[in-house]
Amino acid sequence: TTEMLDPPFLPFCILLGCLGFVCVAFVSAWCQHWRGGFALDGSAQTFNWHPVLMVTGMVVLYGAAALVYRLPVTWSGPKLPWKVLHSTLALAAFVLAVLGLAAVFRFHNDHGTPNMYSLHSWLGLVTVLLFSCQWLAGFSAFLLPWAPAWLRALYKPVHVFFGSTILLLSVASCVSGINEKLFFSLKNGTMEYKRLPAEAVFANTLGLLLLLFGLLVLGALARPSWKRPDADSADSCQ
Amino acid sequence: TTEMLDPPFLPFCILLGCLGFVCVAFVSAWCQHWRGGFALDGSAQTFNWHPVLMVTGMVVLYGAAALVYRLPVTWSGPKLPWKVLHSTLALAAFVLAVLGLAAVFRFHNDHGTPNMYSLHSWLGLVTVLLFSCQWLAGFSAFLLPWAPAWLRALYKPVHVFFGSTILLLSVASCVSGINEKLFFSLKNGTMEYKRLPAEAVFANTLGLLLLLFGLLVLGALARPSWKRPDADSADSCQ
Repeated sequence: TTEMLDPPFLPFCILLGCLGFVCVAFVSAWCQHWRGGFALDGSAQTFNWHPVLMVTGMVVLYGAAALVYRLPVTWSGPKLPWKVLHSTLALAAFVLAVLGLAAVFRFHNDHGTPNMYSLHSWLGLVTVLLFSCQWLAGFSAFLLPWAPAWLRALYKPVHVFFGSTILLLSVASCVSGINEKLFFSLKNGTMEYKRLPAEAVFANTLGLLLLLFGLLVLGALARPSWKRPDADSADSCQ
Repeated sequence: TTEMLDPPFLPFCILLGCLGFVCVAFVSAWCQHWRGGFALDGSAQTFNWHPVLMVTGMVVLYGAAALVYRLPVTWSGPKLPWKVLHSTLALAAFVLAVLGLAAVFRFHNDHGTPNMYSLHSWLGLVTVLLFSCQWLAGFSAFLLPWAPAWLRALYKPVHVFFGSTILLLSVASCVSGINEKLFFSLKNGTMEYKRLPAEAVFANTLGLLLLLFGLLVLGALARPSWKRPDADSADSCQ
């Protein structure tokens, strides 16, 4: 009976891809339509790169990277091409995240605003730092040829656990960041956040969509029937 | 080799209990020491019940309820006592959450502040609504005697999935709520959030501790070796 609840992976993936696209479109539209668009001059338009790059990198691209090994096509044949795809997507996500951090630090520094005081900033930095450790450790253990099989087998469940953890932290960072940005941006007169203007409804919806995206990825990662059948076997050296 | 990474459940549980206690102590100390303590008169001291009740109910008690079936002692003998314990802990968590919502609605209404505009409030309400559905569905399917075995088997993975989902949403709600409250409370003169006064460091730390607690519970729930060995068998009728 539980097979009734076991949807096929591919349609799920397509749905998830559409949802990820909608998230990127929503955050871009928010910054473009309500927050004045994009620039590189240290102004508020420079800050606007921050939400777009973080959502695109740390949620959508990161989610795509995490799900590579759930594609049945990756379960047979040589692993190396899929490892390269997984690490390349993760690296692209990391580069976007670093650019996203650069955007907010530049904006703060040009406006004399302190960095790293809010819970959002602490959480976000912890997330990106964990991600950098995860990428380097994954690259060293699984892509470089020197790591012995026992080390790979030992590290693999840790890598998998932190893979889900970092996504969860990313989504929590995004939610707190959207909430914080709306309080900053909507505080004057008729446009108060409290009065729930169209921008607030739009950005709140973005927050819920990001949560949904993150939950679907975490659920897909945790689903036993979508894991590679030999997932517990020792990782073969390339 | 992976057994080296498989710590015993009981010491983990004791550590987790201590961390949960620290979270409740932190949120209580924050409200008592920096936010003026507690009252039931609709003032800001009434609001202070909100974070304390939400953290205690939706994170700590909820986490305890979720982990009941990971105790090896629950794996043999009649299931009914453990079901009653699981549902009682969850019900206690739900009651605290409802009282926590009542505190913030009372405070808003007495101050003419609109309800339900921020992303934090949307996310928090979605979380509590999902939790109420989860509790009612779990009670109907697993504790009332009429549910057939096939329905229990069908619903069980859904219940397990939403169990983790709701905890994740709870933690994301707490983080966005703490962030929001600090921006509200620390906005005047020398006590700005930006200047990172002691209160901000303390409450930011609370946010990170809550995330750590949630991640440890989610990790414990997902760990295959800590699941009941017959977890996939059909649920026996009581």
